[in-house]
Amino acid sequence: MENKLDHLKQILGKVSDFGYAIAVLDWDQQVNMPEEGDLERGEQISTLHEAAHNLFVSDEVGQLLSDLLSDSSGLEPDSDEARLIKVTKREFDKETKIPIQLIMELSQATTMAHNAWVKAKTNNDFKSFQPHLEKIIELTKNKAECFKPYDHIYDALLDDYEAGMKTTDVRKIFSDIRPQQVALIKNIKESNPIDDSFLKVNFEKSKQWQFGVDVAKAFGLDWKKSRQDVSAHPFTTSFGQKDVRITTNINENLPTSALFSTMHETGHALYELGFNPLHRRTPLSNAASFAFHESQSRLWENLVGRSKFFWNHFFPKFKTIFSDQLSGVDLETFYKAINKVEPSFIRTEADEATYNLHVMLRFELELALFEGNLRVEHLPEAWNEHMQQYLGLVPPNDSLGVLQDVHWSAGLFGYFPTYAIGNLISLQLWEKIHKELKMIDDRISDGEFSELLEWLRNNVHIHGAKYESQELIQKITGSKIDAAPYIHYLKTKYNEIYN
Amino acid sequence: MENKLDHLKQILGKVSDFGYAIAVLDWDQQVNMPEEGDLERGEQISTLHEAAHNLFVSDEVGQLLSDLLSDSSGLEPDSDEARLIKVTKREFDKETKIPIQLIMELSQATTMAHNAWVKAKTNNDFKSFQPHLEKIIELTKNKAECFKPYDHIYDALLDDYEAGMKTTDVRKIFSDIRPQQVALIKNIKESNPIDDSFLKVNFEKSKQWQFGVDVAKAFGLDWKKSRQDVSAHPFTTSFGQKDVRITTNINENLPTSALFSTMHETGHALYELGFNPLHRRTPLSNAASFAFHESQSRLWENLVGRSKFFWNHFFPKFKTIFSDQLSGVDLETFYKAINKVEPSFIRTEADEATYNLHVMLRFELELALFEGNLRVEHLPEAWNEHMQQYLGLVPPNDSLGVLQDVHWSAGLFGYFPTYAIGNLISLQLWEKIHKELKMIDDRISDGEFSELLEWLRNNVHIHGAKYESQELIQKITGSKIDAAPYIHYLKTKYNEIYN
Repeated sequence: MENKLDHLKQILGKVSDFGYAIAVLDWDQQVNMPEEGDLERGEQISTLHEAAHNLFVSDEVGQLLSDLLSDSSGLEPDSDEARLIKVTKREFDKETKIPIQLIMELSQATTMAHNAWVKAKTNNDFKSFQPHLEKIIELTKNKAECFKPYDHIYDALLDDYEAGMKTTDVRKIFSDIRPQQVALIKNIKESNPIDDSFLKVNFEKSKQWQFGVDVAKAFGLDWKKSRQDVSAHPFTTSFGQKDVRITTNINENLPTSALFSTMHETGHALYELGFNPLHRRTPLSNAASFAFHESQSRLWENLVGRSKFFWNHFFPKFKTIFSDQLSGVDLETFYKAINKVEPSFIRTEADEATYNLHVMLRFELELALFEGNLRVEHLPEAWNEHMQQYLGLVPPNDSLGVLQDVHWSAGLFGYFPTYAIGNLISLQLWEKIHKELKMIDDRISDGEFSELLEWLRNNVHIHGAKYESQELIQKITGSKIDAAPYIHYLKTKYNEIYN
Repeated sequence: MENKLDHLKQILGKVSDFGYAIAVLDWDQQVNMPEEGDLERGEQISTLHEAAHNLFVSDEVGQLLSDLLSDSSGLEPDSDEARLIKVTKREFDKETKIPIQLIMELSQATTMAHNAWVKAKTNNDFKSFQPHLEKIIELTKNKAECFKPYDHIYDALLDDYEAGMKTTDVRKIFSDIRPQQVALIKNIKESNPIDDSFLKVNFEKSKQWQFGVDVAKAFGLDWKKSRQDVSAHPFTTSFGQKDVRITTNINENLPTSALFSTMHETGHALYELGFNPLHRRTPLSNAASFAFHESQSRLWENLVGRSKFFWNHFFPKFKTIFSDQLSGVDLETFYKAINKVEPSFIRTEADEATYNLHVMLRFELELALFEGNLRVEHLPEAWNEHMQQYLGLVPPNDSLGVLQDVHWSAGLFGYFPTYAIGNLISLQLWEKIHKELKMIDDRISDGEFSELLEWLRNNVHIHGAKYESQELIQKITGSKIDAAPYIHYLKTKYNEIYN
């Protein structure tokens, strides 16, 4: 059995190398590539994808997995070996169930749809994007149907991002929090508005950059294993366990944009840098789920970075750097400004109180599309109706509405819910952290994050993808995914800020 | 036959994608990678190499090539199709003759030797590098012996860089030019020395960078298909026909270093950007040889960039940017300073008159090592003796002597001669260009390079690897590789500069 496991690991190592190589090519495309390189880069990435697929979805791997499964009955079910076999088998079954022909069709359709989406968004022209989206949804339905039987077609989509999670679970969680978040922002709307105009003036780019780098370093990001670059949309990517990179995008007239994006991506990067070295080059060296990944980014961005404790330490530094812009602004005023709640059109710019509503809107629309209750041509109206209902405002055009996200053009259906669930998990972890690390708020007030990072490394990061998200959160906190801590947090925080 | 050729091209396209992907990973390693990423990057590159090798050296490709060769008798021998089959067959035979076991051993040995070389160079400790070099030479001998029968074992090494060129050809060329170059620098040594002290003061890095970028652009480098970055050693790399990148390294106290390196790499990049789009993703989309590649870089660096015509146009600009440093310096003085001849220890810093002597020294030592007339342990003494004989000086230590180049640690034996042959080819082309483009010196004096670039594109670049270097130079100039134009150029140029 040991021989077979070694053999499997050898193949998985190469598959993992291909994945990292693809990540390098993709990062380079977004960060460096001269504009005319795109066609050839697409060919290269596609060739590597095909090679990785052929290496993994082979009779050899199938046989190894089936032998290992029947030989592994003596293994401790939570051992790395047993879990590796289980996780690999799950991925193998998923990849084998989808015909390669369909994968290629989806890949071609999304490549074309991406370009169409960029144009449609620029020209505010949903009609030109509509046939592409129809095609992608049709192919994605075909893909989902490869996983029959299921309770709900959307289960098969969710499973790509949140293994084990069901549509009915998400529905329950969302129907629990939606009315409470809607009510919260209604209350806030009726309170005195917060002034954040002093944040909307010019903040020198190089100084913004340096402050972000210093914060990331304080959080514990090791620049011997990381770097930050500029890209159109901030993201985190891994080229191994010791090379995990983040990107940001600086808005000269809104310093909070790059700063919180750097904190967010640092949270993602710290997670990936914390995977178990023993899991290296195997599918266990991955996040437990997309929601767990998001829990780490949101924890650092929101629970640390938008807290008063954090700014106790960092506001004096920030004010020294930007003394002109912040002249006369005190900590309390600054803290309120960076936590201002204001329903807006764009999800990625949303504050903590409204963010989940953007996500729930997308979830509802995705469900309706896949259940056959909504036709793509009616998507813009459905979008605007939900915006009115959840956030009380309607975008003036589709570019600020239904066309704002890249996800659907890339075929990423089932992804959005993980953003909101990530927020919930971050609060479950936060409560547990406060039970175990009694002095953590003081540490944060001192600009000292090593205790927090160590806790996350030992309780979350080290496990990688060994456990599914529901298992992992239960193992850490004793509960399954639960919205209560998040709702409690939002209410407490905004009651204080908005009285 | 058409079907078989299409099938072959499909495979070659993927092999080419792997090659470009490896180039991206390598470029990133040299330009961006955080320091701890090296181990994993090595694994990824090795996995991609193996995949490319397995894809290319397969029974399928062997069968296709053998079928195509027997079917292709009706093809015009100089047609793209016939040449593609021929060049691919040559590469296939080379790759199949070397056992994969030997390739792996060489790869491991060079990885270890590289690290050993870096340390040995830093610590001036040849002894610690010696066993690595012995191992590499032994394995390289084994590799060469796979190509028996040959006239000379070194033929098999040369062939990797200069297909079709023989040791005896190189010997003849070098024994022709060596006494003339030795005599030339002896004469120069006896002339009045040139003052270049004004070039050895501080020149602001960002201004150096911008001037280099402007020159590259003037030469015709299209920034939509290229970019420049910083790396320890300047190089050019291709990620396709529309993404070819250069690097440089700026010395704050020697502006000529980055400037001429940018011109040099721009020459390489223009070559790669000029390959025939019809040859895309095939082995024809490559340089004719390493010497031809070097002819392009040296042409732009030396024949254009160190000419008085070039500086007629650019010196006033350069002097405006660096007015303090160049106050009181006129064009004539500047021109002499950038063409100062001074025997020195380091090849990469050598001037035009001494450069080839550095190369010939290495060629002689390589021959002796592979003929069995020199043992690695005696290499440092042999190095120093040759330095005395060719350049009239002896390095004070091995770091400035036998340990200076990375090549041998990487197993690149047979590579060095191409540097000198590239210089010869550049002059053969230069003479032909002056016959066909009567006004070219005036164009260069006007800072106008499009005519020159167009000539190179039409006569050199477009052919890619369709012809071997001897065929190509003959096709362009009517002569085989010939040292006379180069020697004539050196004598004329330095007679004028040194009277």
